[in-house]
Amino acid sequence: MFSRIALIAGLVVMALPAVATGIDDAVTDFTLDNGMQVVVIEDHRAPVVQQMVWYKAGSADEPRGASGIAHFLEHLMFKGTDTMAPGELSATVAANGGQDNAFTTYDYTAYYQRVAADRLELMMKMEADRMVNLRLTEKDIETERNVVLEERNQRTENNPRALFREQMNAVQYYNHRYGVPVIGWKHEVEALDLDDALSFYRTYYAPNDAILVVSGDVDPQEVRALAEKYYGAIPANPDLPERVRAQEPPQRAARRLVFRDPRVAQPYVSRSYLAPERDPGAQEKAAALYLLSELLGGGSTSYLTDRLQFRDKLAVYTGAFYSGTSLDDTTFDFVIVPREGVSLQEAEAALDKALADFMREGVDQEMLDRIKLQLRAARIYALDNVDGIASRYGRALSIGLTVEDVKAWPEILQSVTAEQIMAAAREVLRPEVSVTGWLMRDGEMTQ
Amino acid sequence: MFSRIALIAGLVVMALPAVATGIDDAVTDFTLDNGMQVVVIEDHRAPVVQQMVWYKAGSADEPRGASGIAHFLEHLMFKGTDTMAPGELSATVAANGGQDNAFTTYDYTAYYQRVAADRLELMMKMEADRMVNLRLTEKDIETERNVVLEERNQRTENNPRALFREQMNAVQYYNHRYGVPVIGWKHEVEALDLDDALSFYRTYYAPNDAILVVSGDVDPQEVRALAEKYYGAIPANPDLPERVRAQEPPQRAARRLVFRDPRVAQPYVSRSYLAPERDPGAQEKAAALYLLSELLGGGSTSYLTDRLQFRDKLAVYTGAFYSGTSLDDTTFDFVIVPREGVSLQEAEAALDKALADFMREGVDQEMLDRIKLQLRAARIYALDNVDGIASRYGRALSIGLTVEDVKAWPEILQSVTAEQIMAAAREVLRPEVSVTGWLMRDGEMTQ
Repeated sequence: MFSRIALIAGLVVMALPAVATGIDDAVTDFTLDNGMQVVVIEDHRAPVVQQMVWYKAGSADEPRGASGIAHFLEHLMFKGTDTMAPGELSATVAANGGQDNAFTTYDYTAYYQRVAADRLELMMKMEADRMVNLRLTEKDIETERNVVLEERNQRTENNPRALFREQMNAVQYYNHRYGVPVIGWKHEVEALDLDDALSFYRTYYAPNDAILVVSGDVDPQEVRALAEKYYGAIPANPDLPERVRAQEPPQRAARRLVFRDPRVAQPYVSRSYLAPERDPGAQEKAAALYLLSELLGGGSTSYLTDRLQFRDKLAVYTGAFYSGTSLDDTTFDFVIVPREGVSLQEAEAALDKALADFMREGVDQEMLDRIKLQLRAARIYALDNVDGIASRYGRALSIGLTVEDVKAWPEILQSVTAEQIMAAAREVLRPEVSVTGWLMRDGEMTQ
Repeated sequence: MFSRIALIAGLVVMALPAVATGIDDAVTDFTLDNGMQVVVIEDHRAPVVQQMVWYKAGSADEPRGASGIAHFLEHLMFKGTDTMAPGELSATVAANGGQDNAFTTYDYTAYYQRVAADRLELMMKMEADRMVNLRLTEKDIETERNVVLEERNQRTENNPRALFREQMNAVQYYNHRYGVPVIGWKHEVEALDLDDALSFYRTYYAPNDAILVVSGDVDPQEVRALAEKYYGAIPANPDLPERVRAQEPPQRAARRLVFRDPRVAQPYVSRSYLAPERDPGAQEKAAALYLLSELLGGGSTSYLTDRLQFRDKLAVYTGAFYSGTSLDDTTFDFVIVPREGVSLQEAEAALDKALADFMREGVDQEMLDRIKLQLRAARIYALDNVDGIASRYGRALSIGLTVEDVKAWPEILQSVTAEQIMAAAREVLRPEVSVTGWLMRDGEMTQ
């Protein structure tokens, strides 16, 4: 949450072409007969390849009461199959000098390996194998559940900021599963069993629910031949459920919460607003919101930073965040960390005053132009990281966007006007859809 | 919510036996071979009978995204069967000079008819018929969905207090379905279809998920014979799901919300705390919480009323509410309606000050004795209302309590000590599990 400032601050503003080109030409996509989507991104600068398989199933697709099963299954996917011993896939990757891992989010679960380019076939063989042939024992469940619970202990229970974030999300969403943590509620993770894991696996792990993204030193035709050989042999799941989730009812009440914890080192104010996401063929509003987040709190020259850190010296950190890459309504977030001696009440009042002033003053066109320039620059730098591009495609396709949407996104960002940004701000920054949280030390007064 | 004060204020305090007796002897219970529970309450003072069938399925048992289906099905149950025309059951009841209706809550759905005692067999025949032979058409769905949506318009959309309550509940529960309104979110009700209705019906409407409560001028043996004849002929549903719901994770953050509506005539402060419910064989804590609610805000002599209405003249109404009759964790609630010129901020501060003082001072033994006396008195008055007793049994059995638990409840209430009440208060009245809501007029300032 606190890292973007370093990222943007490091950029040097310079003259750049309107839109970085080239990489889109290196992107090929097709669909196998069984419904599996494939994206190939060529990059011949080094003899390495990355394979990613993205399943369009994340924690928000879990059955009620079984939170954490998507992430738990991600762990279990490193157990054995009929022909692979437990841990063999990762061991093989490592023995070949590569790296592999996996991650789970609300909307998708992804597995990847990065290896020498001539090992791609082996990786496909193994990844396709565990898509359908996973073999789990009661012992696997017991062992890995403890691993996951320990992960939750480390990441959440021992981290007041993470606990605070969980409570914020739970209050933000009335009906949607984004209100439940990806790693799962502890009491539900403790009860996850083999049936839960197999049921989720059999429902969602199928080629017609997966996206293969191969990037690096590869030829699209060869990737297609290999994909057809290994993934194409797996039948589609005819019972794949339609991806329809419980949506939010109208949110009509400004909400607040106070989270206290003796381990809090630095109290701060968090504010989130329910916000629309990027939709296929309709990404303009999300683009406006993204630029709004950059204008308000995207870096050292942003509106909030300028006001609260430099001018009024009330805050040591300010940030605004929006990522529209989700299947359903997401959030637009602010964080204000007050300077020593400034209360959370004062920090929040300063945030609200600044937002009200911004709404009245409107967008500073010069700042918007600078941000657009930075985005063009960032895009060129991003070309150095083909794995990052691969992730961008995988993530976008996992939430139903198309390759065309991904390709169009940079141009859409460049074409957003100040008026569109203000319209999006007026739509989203409404008290009724907001949650304000105070992270405090135990015993600290709220006034 | 505002009616209890009138109820209790009307009671005359007088000498009464420790526990009203007699009615429990009139209660017979047994279970049919197919698992249907039956309770018979004899009352021969008038030649009338009430039949109630309670299904252990309410809105909190609904599938995700299909909120309102329990209540929608309740409406649809008045359509036809193979042998009954739509509306025939109610028409038959009316033609016989009786009354019938139904109601849906989070935990159960109940149907009842009140008729002359000699019509019981006819009622059973018809009620048993619609338990399994309901016939629904697409037209029924369309018509009745509009009726239900209009009901939601009337009861909720046009009622700021109801909308406020919905938002409070949604914030109170992070994970449990009690956070979703019984009538359903409007956008989900609009999408309910025939499949949703039939699926819920076939899953839950079965004798092994139902409780028959017959009260009035009946003989238990005759009721048993009739019940066996009509309900006993229906096979149990072998696939009845276990009644396990998603439970709350630890609630760790005091929450607040502000709900604004131009239609608000009287702003007020609402405060709720997550609280345990009555459990089979373990009702003591719930009894302590019930007495706590009576002590704090149960009537004109209660602690909050005395302080905020009479002494400090800050409020025109104060109330404390707790009903532990639910399957899962419920809420302990306060309402403070400030006097003209007193802000919600002042009203809330006065509530918190009063609660803090109460926690320090402890229970006034004399007040507790008076409340227990009133409960004994109310119990005697309640004997006049055998239908009320029938409802009490149906409600309790629907959430898994036993006939013994219902019989024991009055004695448990009488035996609760001041220490138990204070222990329950300390356990429940914690900021981390609370939601504070302000219902305000549009444009009114929060400070």
